[in-house]
Amino acid sequence: MEPTQVAIIGGGPAGMLLSHMLHLDGIDSVVLERQARDHVLKRIRAGVLEYGTVKLLRDVGLGERMDREGHAHDGSWIAWESRQPFLIDTKRHTGKYMWSFGQTAITEELYRVRAHDGGRVIDEIRQVALHDLDGERPWIGFEKDGKAHRLECDYVAGCDGQHGVSRNSIPTDLLRTYERAYPFGWLGIMSETPPLHQIMYAHHSRGFALASQRNPMLSRYYIQCDLATDLKEWPDERFWEELKRRFPPDIAGKIVTGPSIEKSIAPLRSFVAEPMSYGRLFLAGDAAHNVPPTGAKGLNLAVSDVFYLHRALVAQIKKSDGRYLERYSETALRRVWNAERLSWQLTRLMHVFPDDDDFTRRINLNEFDHLQASPAAQAALAEQYVGMPFEA
Amino acid sequence: MEPTQVAIIGGGPAGMLLSHMLHLDGIDSVVLERQARDHVLKRIRAGVLEYGTVKLLRDVGLGERMDREGHAHDGSWIAWESRQPFLIDTKRHTGKYMWSFGQTAITEELYRVRAHDGGRVIDEIRQVALHDLDGERPWIGFEKDGKAHRLECDYVAGCDGQHGVSRNSIPTDLLRTYERAYPFGWLGIMSETPPLHQIMYAHHSRGFALASQRNPMLSRYYIQCDLATDLKEWPDERFWEELKRRFPPDIAGKIVTGPSIEKSIAPLRSFVAEPMSYGRLFLAGDAAHNVPPTGAKGLNLAVSDVFYLHRALVAQIKKSDGRYLERYSETALRRVWNAERLSWQLTRLMHVFPDDDDFTRRINLNEFDHLQASPAAQAALAEQYVGMPFEA
Repeated sequence: MEPTQVAIIGGGPAGMLLSHMLHLDGIDSVVLERQARDHVLKRIRAGVLEYGTVKLLRDVGLGERMDREGHAHDGSWIAWESRQPFLIDTKRHTGKYMWSFGQTAITEELYRVRAHDGGRVIDEIRQVALHDLDGERPWIGFEKDGKAHRLECDYVAGCDGQHGVSRNSIPTDLLRTYERAYPFGWLGIMSETPPLHQIMYAHHSRGFALASQRNPMLSRYYIQCDLATDLKEWPDERFWEELKRRFPPDIAGKIVTGPSIEKSIAPLRSFVAEPMSYGRLFLAGDAAHNVPPTGAKGLNLAVSDVFYLHRALVAQIKKSDGRYLERYSETALRRVWNAERLSWQLTRLMHVFPDDDDFTRRINLNEFDHLQASPAAQAALAEQYVGMPFEA
Repeated sequence: MEPTQVAIIGGGPAGMLLSHMLHLDGIDSVVLERQARDHVLKRIRAGVLEYGTVKLLRDVGLGERMDREGHAHDGSWIAWESRQPFLIDTKRHTGKYMWSFGQTAITEELYRVRAHDGGRVIDEIRQVALHDLDGERPWIGFEKDGKAHRLECDYVAGCDGQHGVSRNSIPTDLLRTYERAYPFGWLGIMSETPPLHQIMYAHHSRGFALASQRNPMLSRYYIQCDLATDLKEWPDERFWEELKRRFPPDIAGKIVTGPSIEKSIAPLRSFVAEPMSYGRLFLAGDAAHNVPPTGAKGLNLAVSDVFYLHRALVAQIKKSDGRYLERYSETALRRVWNAERLSWQLTRLMHVFPDDDDFTRRINLNEFDHLQASPAAQAALAEQYVGMPFEA
């Protein structure tokens, strides 16, 4: 098939955003996606955007629906048993806000604008293999509708997530990986009910809980659960009852319950692969790293990778300036590790770990008390929660 | 023997400071110490004072020698392998400073002023036992020079450290304890050499190191060591060599070596007993809690306990106002847990733990990078390092 400048493996938000941003700079790309489009568009994922993500999406012409359907938050609340919750007040400490807007809607918008601009997205492909990544002319082999294809390109962007082919195309002796598994998961439901006014993280001796939202009639709630949890044992009534037990009573009383439209269990994982590049292949988003959802860094990190990768590819392709591309992995990884640390620390603080001793429990309680009492500690947390600025 | 208003168990800095402060308010006390005075005065312990400790010591007339022999620091430095060290700039972030002045000198001063004021300090006692603590008239039984004595009092202050009799006089079913042991110790030396200009904490893959000081010709250095370390295998030359390897080269080059005048190994421990009171017994300092030395909170915490306990005893004895005394344990413990958390977190960050995985190592490295890069994170750390204000 007709070659392209950038072959993008994976049609999730990272790949589609990169494709869109490259298009704005007159750079051609082809997106290759294993799943059917319907499947991609139905995935329910993140919903809380950093300030930098919101700004970037507006800058690339994707702000209209986000501004109409989503809304700003001054930050998120942290609750702890019956103690007084406090706000991670990003507005006050950084002048910036967070934004509630679902990843599902962002992906829809990306597919819409790419279709409008004539972008090539090939879905339902099989047998994807990346070739000659360390040469001048890499190519992607794949099957579509039973026919073999070869896509030649100048660069390959690996945006195909945790289980994708891209990271696995890097020789293992060049790749260093860092991983942490967690001894629990998140049981989440989506319901068409008015959400709480604010996003709230809650620690409780029974486990963590989170009240989040997508829009004024779409609520997203999670509770920490055992990894062996069986969804069949969690009818909606049981979920709501357990959820309410984990929030302070006055908050629990405000939770509007209703039938779930989605219910699922997600394991938590911290993972980083280094470097994020090999020859002409550059990884972005979940293909290179995962964070537990605590702190909502996953999608935001994918967007920051795309920001750096887009800038680097534009400099290389339009100005033959390879300096950004050379430093892409190093630059992106600084933000990745910040997010890995923050999401690990928040996960550690807010969850009940099966092997916690009394000392750990009291240290965590004191961390909450300290955060609640110290504007300086709140400012340090707010700055990281709202997202560190992209590097120049 | 003649009764007293407050029997103080333990003649270390906590007990002696309490005795001195009570005296300033016209309240009589007797200090009972198991060791000989020489032994007490020779103990080498902490040397870095929080701003609140410095202020309190000045307020109670103990500032003269401290101001002459010790000196202020804008904070302490944190180094990490070959990275650029940064300053926990307490002056900049809080307007307050830290002070280098040895616990040994403070204890000497306390003995001097108590002797001058005719304070009763009975040392080298044996068979100490606390009686009727939950009654109206507690008393202390002990032996001195082979003779049995009985000291009646209104209140008992337990300032006799980690292994003292005071905490063990509280019925175990009323006491809740929290503990963490660390899989390493600190090998420390004292030498009569000019110290580095600043206090510096250093992380290195070989282990933690600390450059501290007591006065312009008295240096204190530590290196993290295995708990099974044999002092005989650590002649001065080996210590200096290992110490220098753990600091950035330009810092190591400034370390002035010389013969050690003291060399010892200290285990690290986090420990809290709750509550800090029982009937008319009130614990202060190491009798109720230990922190690892990372962050220099031990002596400062003893001073803050004494601040609260002195205020409470004065209110009770002089104005029959028992409200402070009733809340003593609760009030003191808030500062205790803050210090427990900070010293645990600093210990965790700066040391090499035998079971650290790669993920943990990178998270710690990122914590350093983040602290170095973020004024907000530095401010939050500086505020805790210089010491949270005493509660009103």
